[in-house]
Parts: sequence; C-alpha cells; structure tokens
Amino acid sequence: MQPKSNIVHLPVYKPGKPIEDVKRELGLSEVIKLASNENPFGFSNFAKSAIQEQLQQINYYPDGASVELTSALATHLLVKPEQLIFGTGSSDIILMIARAFLTLEDETIMAEETFSQYKHNAEVENAIVVEVPLVDGKHDLVAMQAAITERTKIIWICNPNNPTGTIVTNEELVAFLDKVPDHVMVVLDEAYGEYVEDPSFSNGIQLLDKYHNLVLLRTFSKIYGLASLRIGYGIGDPEIIAYINQVREPFNTTRLAQVAAKAALADDAFLSYCREQNRAGIDFINQELERLGLDYFPAHGNFVMFDAKRASSEVFQSLLQKGIVARAGWKNYPNWIRISVGTMPQNEKFIAALEQVLQEVTVQ
Amino acid sequence: MQPKSNIVHLPVYKPGKPIEDVKRELGLSEVIKLASNENPFGFSNFAKSAIQEQLQQINYYPDGASVELTSALATHLLVKPEQLIFGTGSSDIILMIARAFLTLEDETIMAEETFSQYKHNAEVENAIVVEVPLVDGKHDLVAMQAAITERTKIIWICNPNNPTGTIVTNEELVAFLDKVPDHVMVVLDEAYGEYVEDPSFSNGIQLLDKYHNLVLLRTFSKIYGLASLRIGYGIGDPEIIAYINQVREPFNTTRLAQVAAKAALADDAFLSYCREQNRAGIDFINQELERLGLDYFPAHGNFVMFDAKRASSEVFQSLLQKGIVARAGWKNYPNWIRISVGTMPQNEKFIAALEQVLQEVTVQ
Repeated sequence: MQPKSNIVHLPVYKPGKPIEDVKRELGLSEVIKLASNENPFGFSNFAKSAIQEQLQQINYYPDGASVELTSALATHLLVKPEQLIFGTGSSDIILMIARAFLTLEDETIMAEETFSQYKHNAEVENAIVVEVPLVDGKHDLVAMQAAITERTKIIWICNPNNPTGTIVTNEELVAFLDKVPDHVMVVLDEAYGEYVEDPSFSNGIQLLDKYHNLVLLRTFSKIYGLASLRIGYGIGDPEIIAYINQVREPFNTTRLAQVAAKAALADDAFLSYCREQNRAGIDFINQELERLGLDYFPAHGNFVMFDAKRASSEVFQSLLQKGIVARAGWKNYPNWIRISVGTMPQNEKFIAALEQVLQEVTVQ
Repeated sequence: MQPKSNIVHLPVYKPGKPIEDVKRELGLSEVIKLASNENPFGFSNFAKSAIQEQLQQINYYPDGASVELTSALATHLLVKPEQLIFGTGSSDIILMIARAFLTLEDETIMAEETFSQYKHNAEVENAIVVEVPLVDGKHDLVAMQAAITERTKIIWICNPNNPTGTIVTNEELVAFLDKVPDHVMVVLDEAYGEYVEDPSFSNGIQLLDKYHNLVLLRTFSKIYGLASLRIGYGIGDPEIIAYINQVREPFNTTRLAQVAAKAALADDAFLSYCREQNRAGIDFINQELERLGLDYFPAHGNFVMFDAKRASSEVFQSLLQKGIVARAGWKNYPNWIRISVGTMPQNEKFIAALEQVLQEVTVQ
C-alpha cells in the first residue's frame, strides 16, 4: 500500500495542544494564544445573526456554487462573479491551484520564509520548488524574477508576508509583473491585505485588468474574524478561475460560512475598529520592543516578528510557561519570534512575560 | 497559462439553481427538494446546542487535529484514534486518498454507476479509471476482482451504492476481500451505512482487523443531518491514515462541524427515529411504485431509484414543474429517477406529482 513517493517525506501535520491541556499541564489559569494571527476582537454581529438565521438549515447541503455570496462579493469588490472562487479557507485555493496547474518537474518560485502551504502543495504535486531568500524580511522580487526559467509555472507572493509582516509596494509589484512572462501565473496572497495602511501598498484588484496571469488570494479568517468557519477566496481571470473550478470539491464551503461571510462584508465599522485597534497594538509592541533593545520587521499585518537574540525554541518555551503561546521555528530566523497582535491587555501581558523571558534565557 | 492536460476535459461543476429561483421562475409557492439525499428530519438538538455554545469562538481556528471529536468517535466506534481522519465531507477523504496514492497510469476500479467523486478525483490524478458495470443495480464484485491487474492501486465500493441504493452483503464482501492482493487498497464508502437494516449487511469496522488494505468512508451529512457543516471521516490502518494525513489541509473542518458531530454521536434516539421514518418512507414509496407498475431497486439508503419507463430528463422536468426536484442523468439508466426519501407528506406529494407526470410524459 505505497503512496506517491514524493509525499512520504512530507511533514505530517502536528496538532497543537488544546489550550485546556496546556493550562492543566503547566498549572496556569490563563493562556493567551498569540500564535495563529487570529482576530482578538471577535467578528461582526452581522455574521452572528446570519448564522443564527441559518441554524435550522444545517441538514441541507450548502449551495455548492455560493451564488449569493459570489454576487455580494463581486459587487463589494467591483469584479465579475466569474472572477471569483471560494475555498475551505484560502489554503484550499492554494491546493486547487497546485492541483490544477502543477505537474512533475514544473518549477514554482516562492520566498524562502513564507506561508508554508505553497511549498507543501507544490511538493504533493511533485513540482520543483525554487526558494528565494528574503532580504530584510522582504520578498526579493528582482531575484524572484531572475529565477524564472522556461519551466516556471507559478510564482507565489505573500503580501504582507507571513511570517515577517513586510510588504512589497505597488510600484515594486508592477515593475515585477511587467517582467513576468504571460505563461507564468503570479499568485498574490493578500490574506492580511485589509490590515495594511501604508500608502505605498495597494491591493491587487486594480492590477487584474492589465495582468491576466495574476491570481489574488483573500480570506475571511483574518480581519473578518471567521477563521473557524474556513472560508477564503481567489480572484482572477475567468479562464483561470474556471480551470481551478474543475478540481474544486462540489461542496467545499459550509452554509454557515457562506452566510456569515456575506453578512460580514457589510460591516465596515467592525473592520475599521479592528484596523485601528491593530495599529495601536503594533505601535505599542514596537515601542516596547525598542525599549527592550530588540529589532523587529515593519509589521503590516496583525502580527509582529522580532529578533529575541536568543534561541527561539527556548524563548517559545519560556513564554509558554508564562501563559503566552507564540510562534517560532523558521530556519533562517533561529532567534526570531512571531507574535500576533492581541487586545491591549493581552499585548501588555505578552510584553511583561517577554521582559521576564529575556532575563531567564541566555543571549545567543 | 495551461492547466494539467488531464483536467481540461473534466466537467465543470454546474451549480444547481437556488430553490428561491426555481420557485420564482416556475411560479410555484412550494418546491420540495428530494435530489441530494439529505435528512428531511433535521438534525440532533444536541448538535444545535453544541453549535450555539461555540458561536463566540468563531474567530479562532478550529483544532486542526480534531482531538476531541477523534477521541469521542474512537470510543463510539471502538477503534483507535490513529485509525481516524476527518474531511470536509467524506468527499474530501476521497480527494486526499486519490492525491496521496494515485499517480499517472495507476489503475483504479469502480462501478460504472456510483458516486461521481471517485472517478473525478482519479482523473485529476491522471490515473486510469476501470469501470465495471452494475448487475441489477448492484456492484459486481466478481467482475471487479477479475479486473485487478498489477497496476491496480485502489478499488472503490459504495455500500449502499449511490445512486442505486443496493448493497453488497457481508458474505460477498469477505469473499471479495479474500481475493484482493495486499497491495490494492479497497475503499468501502458507507455514507448511507447507518440506514441499513438488512441482516445480510454489516458495516466494515469488524473487517478492519483482518484486512489492512481496507479504508472505510463515513459521513455526518446523511443520517446525522449535518450536510451543510461538511464533515465526514475515514477509518483504516494507522499507516494508511498517516499517509492520507500528509496531504490533508491543516484546517479542513470547521469548529462548528467538530462540536456538532461530537454532540450528534450521543443522540441515539434521533438516529433511531430517522431510521424508522426512512424505512416507513421507503415502504410507502415502493408500494406506490408497484401500484403505478414501475420497477425499482431494493433501497437500503435514504433514497429510491426507479424505472419511470420514460426519458428521465423529461420526467425530471415534469416533476420540477410540479415542485419536486428529483435526480436523473445516469448513462446506463436513461429512464431511471433517483428520489430521496422525504417526510411522509413530502413522499405523498411526490407520488401525487409522479402520477400526473406518468400521464403527461410519453412512454419510451
């Protein structure tokens, strides 16, 4: 019973411990999870009401084509309905793109430290992964363009980048896209795009008319706060979207996710509130990191990556002992920690815990 | 921007019309959907309460490893936790099995008329699909075994079979499994297994100890009535399950689906009620079909497939005009219709509509 030889070496997903287990094992009454870039401010009440209204319909399959959500989102984004495709989170769109387009020995280019699912799915398809180092935590678009060969099929750009939080500017992106051949797909993952306030950034929608090889990824898991409902989407040329649709599971999003996402689109006030709170959180964390003498990358999403100057595995464990779940473990950043922006009380607890950690863990 | 050559010819998913559109277009005040083998009796109140309790947690990612649900289901089924894997419906398990195990020119055997996702996913992986005709609407296990070659990788058996509703008996299954070589995986899809009352049927769990190449598929979409939440599971040898896990999306089921499924497991009374009502519905429909002089396959799931003796596309349209959405369109059964068992008032409306249809549509 042998699987594909190329999947055997892939890392098996390691489950995170449930918070309740962490509490019990460490004897803690409170554990703050700042590990998954979730929205600490909850989600729109509009979405909650929409879910409540649909609770009696759970025994019926969802609309496999997400007709109502597609229509609402197309209006919201000023795109055509046939430019949209929905997935079980945007990671499902990544899976579908890889499954529809990547074959044995196709090359696919991505940053060396970026969202893990691009590489994972490319490897499942037996494609050749070409990883380009970040420079100062930022995508090196010039090097990525130089890495293109005749066999390049897809280039993945995460903007803002997870885990570093940096952005490529609109100007840099346009200069890059101008040089990418038409037969190469560029996937621009804007999972955290709605958080960005920097004027040099602009989301990819206005680029779609000119660059037909561009596909955008978005999600309702981040600023919309619907992570547990698993719904994200792709935007692109109708022909590409139709191809992706050919490998989509007929019912890949739930009824509750569809109605919640549609309702959430209408709640501008919630998004503005989250953006403001997130900005205040970043400003506070950055200022505290400076006080503690620690470097950090400019944060444009809802998380901050900083140099703890100590082995990140030790810092991670020490933070955990103090009830803070952070994220660590990047090959090229052995001393760096990624922390999600929490509520202000959570951010304050994190900084207090970090200050203790810095005393306890030896500088590398 | 060319996708894999083998996916281009695949049928693009065609969305069903929302019920509200059907009503408006046909000027109907009521439309009864008996097309998707949903549970017309709703779902467990235990599940509803569990969902209500989790509504405030939607902004947090689900537990990617479904730890609590896995534990509860393992206890419920008397299997080990490492024998279980969850998916976005059992169709996600089909996708993952195909993605992990099927490669170019592997052969995979299935019935000619069965659940469409086996063939679809095999074709996405560029495997060779070997289809074996049903006999009297039933899997021909002898012919399927005879179709095994050195290149055979997976055999799919849907039991009860969708769309025909027939079963293979435990005795037939054991005789078949005894002859299948160890290197061939047998996927036994028991999506409708909880409905079966025939004593010659037994579900596959007790076969797992002896046949390590056997993988079972189950779902919460049918008798559990949680179709819109998209959660199903696979049961098999821990080694096979671990391989499937390597291509699983980290968060492929929602938080609400996990808690609802776990709660639903405890509601035996709801399942018994659904099973009884379903049996009464089948008995009624069969008796009426006999009165109308129409043949049908023995129904073991929550649907009945019958020979309308008229072009099924015309029967489908004529039923639709009368507010009944049925299912038609099987190559080898051009005159047959599949109808889901509804509530008794729905079954009665269906039969009344069918009686009119038989007057209006010309016999083939």
